[in-house]
Amino acid sequence: MQFDNNEHPHRRYNPLIGEWILVSPHRAKRPWQGQKESANNEERPHYDPTCYLCAGNLRSDGTRNDDYKDVFVFDNDFPSLLKDDVVAPENTSPLFQLKPERGINRVICFSPRHDLTLPEMEVGDIKKVVDVWKAQYIDLGSNDFINHVQIFENKGAVMGCSNPHPHGQIWSQSSLPTNVEKTQANLKKYYEANGRSLLADYLAEELERKERIVLENEHFVVLVPFWAVWPFETLIISKRHFGNLTQMTEEESLAFADAIRRLTIKYDNLFETSFPYSSGIHQSPTDGEDHPEWHMHMHFYPPLLRSASVKKFMVGYELMAEAQRDISPEKSAAMLRELSETHYKHR
Amino acid sequence: MQFDNNEHPHRRYNPLIGEWILVSPHRAKRPWQGQKESANNEERPHYDPTCYLCAGNLRSDGTRNDDYKDVFVFDNDFPSLLKDDVVAPENTSPLFQLKPERGINRVICFSPRHDLTLPEMEVGDIKKVVDVWKAQYIDLGSNDFINHVQIFENKGAVMGCSNPHPHGQIWSQSSLPTNVEKTQANLKKYYEANGRSLLADYLAEELERKERIVLENEHFVVLVPFWAVWPFETLIISKRHFGNLTQMTEEESLAFADAIRRLTIKYDNLFETSFPYSSGIHQSPTDGEDHPEWHMHMHFYPPLLRSASVKKFMVGYELMAEAQRDISPEKSAAMLRELSETHYKHR
Ligand SMILES: O=P(O)(O)O[C@H]1O[C@H](CO)[C@@H](O)[C@H](O)[C@H]1O
Ligand SMILES: O=P(O)(O)O[C@H]1O[C@H](CO)[C@@H](O)[C@H](O)[C@H]1O
Repeated sequence: MQFDNNEHPHRRYNPLIGEWILVSPHRAKRPWQGQKESANNEERPHYDPTCYLCAGNLRSDGTRNDDYKDVFVFDNDFPSLLKDDVVAPENTSPLFQLKPERGINRVICFSPRHDLTLPEMEVGDIKKVVDVWKAQYIDLGSNDFINHVQIFENKGAVMGCSNPHPHGQIWSQSSLPTNVEKTQANLKKYYEANGRSLLADYLAEELERKERIVLENEHFVVLVPFWAVWPFETLIISKRHFGNLTQMTEEESLAFADAIRRLTIKYDNLFETSFPYSSGIHQSPTDGEDHPEWHMHMHFYPPLLRSASVKKFMVGYELMAEAQRDISPEKSAAMLRELSETHYKHR
Repeated sequence: MQFDNNEHPHRRYNPLIGEWILVSPHRAKRPWQGQKESANNEERPHYDPTCYLCAGNLRSDGTRNDDYKDVFVFDNDFPSLLKDDVVAPENTSPLFQLKPERGINRVICFSPRHDLTLPEMEVGDIKKVVDVWKAQYIDLGSNDFINHVQIFENKGAVMGCSNPHPHGQIWSQSSLPTNVEKTQANLKKYYEANGRSLLADYLAEELERKERIVLENEHFVVLVPFWAVWPFETLIISKRHFGNLTQMTEEESLAFADAIRRLTIKYDNLFETSFPYSSGIHQSPTDGEDHPEWHMHMHFYPPLLRSASVKKFMVGYELMAEAQRDISPEKSAAMLRELSETHYKHR
C-alpha cells in the first residue's frame, strides 16, 4: 500500500523539541459519546462591576485597578513564583534533586472592554498589547535574577481561565523552563551545524509546499506545523530571523498584531464560538548572552476537535506514551485557510 | 531565608524522564472562580442494555460481546493504529520527518458489572484483570511488528472516558513511544553506571524517608513521587526488581491487585467521588532484547486538585514552559496516607 497522509497512522518528528508524535488521521471518523464542554457564547457587558480586571475595580487583595484606557499590567495577586532569595537545601542524592526558584508573575489586561477578546479588537489596539509585551520583556529581563520571560494567554474556561475579561499572563523566572530549554538546544544545534535559523529554513520550505499555510502578511506567516499535536494548533513565524520582541521594527509589530487578529478571527469562525486556546511566545532568554540561534515564534494550542463542545483529550495514551492527534495537520490547515477573515458576529 | 518544601517555589528533577518541573506550594491558597467539573456520583445499574461494553450487547460495528463473566478483551472498533504494512514515503528533509506506524489496539472490560469500578471490585477480581494484562502483553508482544505494549485506563468523563463501564485499553505498536523511550534511556544510563535499578535505589531511599509513602504491602509500594506533577499523582513500584508483568509470581500478581485496590479506594475517599484518573503501566518493550535496566511501575495521573469539581489545568505556562503543581508532593502523600481503606460507599 502506498502511504497517504490522510489515511495511514504515522509518526512525525518535532525538530523544535526533538520528539515524535503519533498521527491517526482515519480516527476522526469515530463517534463521540463522551464529555461535552459548554460553548462560551454569553453576551458580556462593556463593564462589569464585579470583575476584578475591569478598570477602576477593587481586586481581592484590596488594590484598586488604574482607570486604564488601553493595556494594563499589574503583579499577580497569587503568583506561582516569588522574588525571595531562599537558601537552597543540601542535595543529598541525584534521585532527589530540588532547587529554589525565583520569579515575578504579572497579569496583562488587553483592553478595558470586558466584552472583547483579541479577535474582536482593532489591529491598532492589539499592536498596543504587542508593545506592552515588548516593554515587559525589557523591564522584567532587566532584573539580574530573571533569565526567562514567558508571555502567554489562557483563553476560555476549558483552558483554566477564570475570568473572561481579555487578559494574558507573564511568568518570568531564573531558570530556563524545560520546554524552552529543549527548544533552545535544538535551535542551537541546527544553527551551529548550518549557520542558519532552523525556523527560517523550515518556513522557506513551508512557503513552497503551501499545504500547511493558514495566512500570511508582509512580515509573518501563520501555519499548522508539520508536527502539530493539538487539532488546530498553529505557529506564527516571523519571515525575518530575529530572536525576541525587542528586535521587531514598528512595522513588524503591527504585522504581528495583524497576524494574531486574523488568526483568532478564523479560530472564532471555525465553530462560531469564542474559540478557546492557550498561546505563548517563545523567544531568546534574558540571560545577557548572545543567542543568534533564536527565532521568535508564537504557539497557539486550542483544545477543540469537532465542534464548540467536543475537545481533544490528552489522556491515557498521550500522558503515558506520546502525544497523539486524530486529524492530519494538512486537513486542519485547509479548514483554517478557507475560513473568512470577517468575524462571524459582524457578518 | 531557610528553604521550606511547603512554602517556597522550587523546581524538582524527574530522573525517569530527565526533566524539571515547577512546584508552587504556597499557591494552593488562591481562590478558584473558574470552570467546575460535574462530579460523577450517579448510580448505575448492574447491566445497561444500551452500553456497548456490557456482556452480550451489540457494538456499533455489529459485533456482539461475549456473555463474559469476568474480564473481556476485544479489538478496538476505532483503533488509532492499524496492522497494515504501508510503504514509507521518501524523507526529503530533516525538518519534515514522517514514518508509517503499525499497531493493534484493544479494549479490556474489567468486569461484566456495569456499576463497578476498580476500587469497588474484590481483590480476586482485580487479580483477574492483572492476569489478562499479562496474557495480552505476551499475546500482542509475540507479533513481530509489535515492540511496545501500552496498557492504560482513562477513568471518568473529565479524562476523556466516554463509557462508565469499567474498562481500560491497550495500544501496542512498532515504535517505542516518546515518553517510554525517555524513561528507558534514563533507566539504562543509571543501570550502566551503577549496576542497579534506578527505581530500586529510589524506593529504598523513599522507604527510609517515609514522607511520600501512601501505602505498602509485601511486594509493592505506592508513593507520591518526589517529582510528581499532578496534584495527587502516584507511582506503584515493585519491591523486587523485574522488568515486566510476565516476571511476576502469582503472589506478586495478587499483591499488585491489592495495591491497586487500596490506592483507588483512597482516591475515591479523598473527595467522596468516583475519582477520575489516567493510569498506565511502564515496562520493558517486547522487542526481543534483554532489558535488565527496566523496573516495572504503574503511574496514576488524577486531574482533581481541591474537590470533586475543581481540577488542575495544565495550560498556558505548563504547555509553553514546564509542568507546574500547586501543592507539595509531601502534603498530597500525607493526605492520601491518612485516608481510610474502606470505600466511603460501604461505611
Ligand atoms: O479511545 P477512547 O477512550 O475513545 O479515547 C480516549 O482515550 C484516547 C487514548 O488516551 C485519547 O486519544 C482520546 O482523546 C480519549 O478521548
Ligand atoms: O493563573 P490562573 O489564570 O488563575 O491559572 C491558570 O493558568 C495557570 C498557568 O498556566 C495554571 O497553572 C492554572 O492551572 C490555570 O488555572
